Amino acid sequence: MKKKLLVIGAVAAGTSAAAKARRQDPEMEIKVYAEGEYISYGGCGLPYFVGGRIDKKEKLLARSIEEFAQQGIEVKALTRAINIDTEQGKVSFLNLSSGHCFEEAYDNLVIATGARPYKPDLPGVDLKGIFNLRTINDGLNIKNYLHQYQPRRAIIIGGGYIGLEMVENLMQYGCQIILLERGRQIIPNMDEDMAGIVQQYLESKGVEVHTDEIIREFGGTQLVSELHSNKGRTPVEFVLMSVGVQPNSEIAAQAGIELGINQAIRINDRMETNIQGIYSAGDCAVVNHLLSGEEVYIPMGTTANKQGKVAGENAAGGNAVFKGVLGTGIARVMEMEIARTGFCEKECLRRGIEYISHTIKGRTAAHYCPASGDIWVKLIMEKNTRRLLGGQIVGYNGAGKRIDVLATAITTGATVDEIIEMDLAYSPPFSPVWDPVLVALNQF
Amino acid sequence: MKKKLLVIGAVAAGTSAAAKARRQDPEMEIKVYAEGEYISYGGCGLPYFVGGRIDKKEKLLARSIEEFAQQGIEVKALTRAINIDTEQGKVSFLNLSSGHCFEEAYDNLVIATGARPYKPDLPGVDLKGIFNLRTINDGLNIKNYLHQYQPRRAIIIGGGYIGLEMVENLMQYGCQIILLERGRQIIPNMDEDMAGIVQQYLESKGVEVHTDEIIREFGGTQLVSELHSNKGRTPVEFVLMSVGVQPNSEIAAQAGIELGINQAIRINDRMETNIQGIYSAGDCAVVNHLLSGEEVYIPMGTTANKQGKVAGENAAGGNAVFKGVLGTGIARVMEMEIARTGFCEKECLRRGIEYISHTIKGRTAAHYCPASGDIWVKLIMEKNTRRLLGGQIVGYNGAGKRIDVLATAITTGATVDEIIEMDLAYSPPFSPVWDPVLVALNQF
Repeated sequence: MKKKLLVIGAVAAGTSAAAKARRQDPEMEIKVYAEGEYISYGGCGLPYFVGGRIDKKEKLLARSIEEFAQQGIEVKALTRAINIDTEQGKVSFLNLSSGHCFEEAYDNLVIATGARPYKPDLPGVDLKGIFNLRTINDGLNIKNYLHQYQPRRAIIIGGGYIGLEMVENLMQYGCQIILLERGRQIIPNMDEDMAGIVQQYLESKGVEVHTDEIIREFGGTQLVSELHSNKGRTPVEFVLMSVGVQPNSEIAAQAGIELGINQAIRINDRMETNIQGIYSAGDCAVVNHLLSGEEVYIPMGTTANKQGKVAGENAAGGNAVFKGVLGTGIARVMEMEIARTGFCEKECLRRGIEYISHTIKGRTAAHYCPASGDIWVKLIMEKNTRRLLGGQIVGYNGAGKRIDVLATAITTGATVDEIIEMDLAYSPPFSPVWDPVLVALNQF
Repeated sequence: MKKKLLVIGAVAAGTSAAAKARRQDPEMEIKVYAEGEYISYGGCGLPYFVGGRIDKKEKLLARSIEEFAQQGIEVKALTRAINIDTEQGKVSFLNLSSGHCFEEAYDNLVIATGARPYKPDLPGVDLKGIFNLRTINDGLNIKNYLHQYQPRRAIIIGGGYIGLEMVENLMQYGCQIILLERGRQIIPNMDEDMAGIVQQYLESKGVEVHTDEIIREFGGTQLVSELHSNKGRTPVEFVLMSVGVQPNSEIAAQAGIELGINQAIRINDRMETNIQGIYSAGDCAVVNHLLSGEEVYIPMGTTANKQGKVAGENAAGGNAVFKGVLGTGIARVMEMEIARTGFCEKECLRRGIEYISHTIKGRTAAHYCPASGDIWVKLIMEKNTRRLLGGQIVGYNGAGKRIDVLATAITTGATVDEIIEMDLAYSPPFSPVWDPVLVALNQF
């Protein structure tokens, strides 16, 4: 008899799981249920959709329900999973259009319910003009608001990747922008010195950066009009909250599925939960950190795709493994590129790892090339083993993707000495004769 | 007593050696003699100097004679080394300005005499309008000629990196350009399928590409006016010869220093020749291929700098090693980026290595980003060990430097399986959610 795979969630991890399961087993029955209206969309493109660089929401959609149907995958949107019965092997759903409930049996289940924006419990947080950016509808709502109200002062709360990308994209609307961060530096997953370079750049472009600022309340009658914090009151006409996400793991927890760090669903390297036949992947799940072997919660689109693929393959009888991540990340804000991988100094200190760190400033191309930009490369090496543990890069004109060289070296467990004289590609438009990555390695 | 280091040659390897020797030993006497007029210049920038993207020759100069003097390094230009007496430890020089000869004793010697363009022995090869591009004076001569004669048809002989870069830069002069290659494909150090993509691109931009064409003679009275080949006669008003270089190793050979492949000076991983106290580095010397352990001749600016640094350190009492190269290379022609590292299929076949190869076509950024360009990635894996052996990339918008990820993986001896799910950096302006390098790795 044909087996039946049920997938809950249809953005990155869920659709990857379904597509891979289909390739693994052409016969299996595969059904995917999505709570949202849109499926299989590139959520990481939303800042550029708001900014107008991506002109139509359709461009964010990777595959349609019809395309999945052609592969023999049935996808239903606007359907919320409300209960998992692991004994009986069935899931209860609520059809959000009709209001009807129904049940669906499964042989194997992939939980890819994603995450939702963390919403602080603050007075006034529900005022109009305060937004999250997580779904296509969020993006549409923000665009409509910006066009209708033409705010002159916008506050972005949270100095992570989304916050930075939104700085660039809100600038298209001519707003005065404040980037507000409760910690002492923006980009919390980088070290303060590197984040400081980005902060200076933002300030040079007219962005106000507030650090160590903790919000207490939003003021306004119907529309948000001011923000109260430990630093005082700031008038504001638009607020974007980008202070992180929390996993949609409640339905799993209720079903007796074990949770891990940050209340995310605990999985092993085969994406298996503690209950046989039930897999999880994406922003609702934990992931293994390759350097520490620790369970971490670093929700990322790339990881969701990789975990989804492995979950789908295994849920269809395969035997795939996803070993984990290095916490690699990259973002662009205007001309500046910002990237990191592995451990930063803070993470080494927290773990008691003895390390040596060097930072260099170089150029991304030969000094006589017009496309040459400044680049700062910070490397962190474990003191005893001389293994490369981490890299951080900020700069212009092709700086950012150089982080992949460091991610590759860390993945293979390379020592600094193995790669110090590597044969990296050089010609004047692409690099100085000593690539800045090599210049940094040569400091050790 | 202070030791004395003599360096012959003052472009990439020679100046790197002198500078590193000075850092290694602040006391040593260091003298550098250069045959040319210009020292310490970025020869790889010459195509862009011809094309006018680099407006002044001074921009190509890294360090001046005065700057070296400040470091206690005496540099003399226009001085040709004519004999090395390894018994007595002295070098005879000819001052090209005065015509006088003199001798200079050394304790240690670094031979960094570079290479010269290979000049085929063909009738008419000395006609005016036929050029090489190796030195700053070559660049100046070409610019003068192009401005004075405004040729309408230009032929570039040799489809390697310099030839490709000169296509782009000659286009600034509005010439009709023919790229001529005696082999069956352009870019001889890549495979035919990848070179074919570049050829198609060049043709789409109006460049005529002639392959399998062997020149027999150049015609013309004073200025070159036509080219005779196995394919017939072609009218032409400008010819650039870029058919490779040969090492300036004669002076070493005469002194009893052992030569290796391509008549280049044989050195070990400490840059030592067979004669104690004599080192060599740069385009006059061989280099070790990291994959095969074979001695190869792949003259490159990056390698010259690395070898020079090691030669200088060791010649000043240090103990440095340069392990070798992967034959990594990169070039840009108009919007197209072309890069390679490790072995290509041809090289595997020649060595009898059993391999598996896959090529994918992908995008350099998320499909909805304006900066997203096509990219082709070809990977070669050793069949038994599953080690990555080589990579070739062509494409647009940030395609080329992705080769460094492959160079890093090959340097560390990574198998395809170790890096197949690597945590490379993703955000929409930089990559699709599956970086094309990972897409290619996932084919194995």
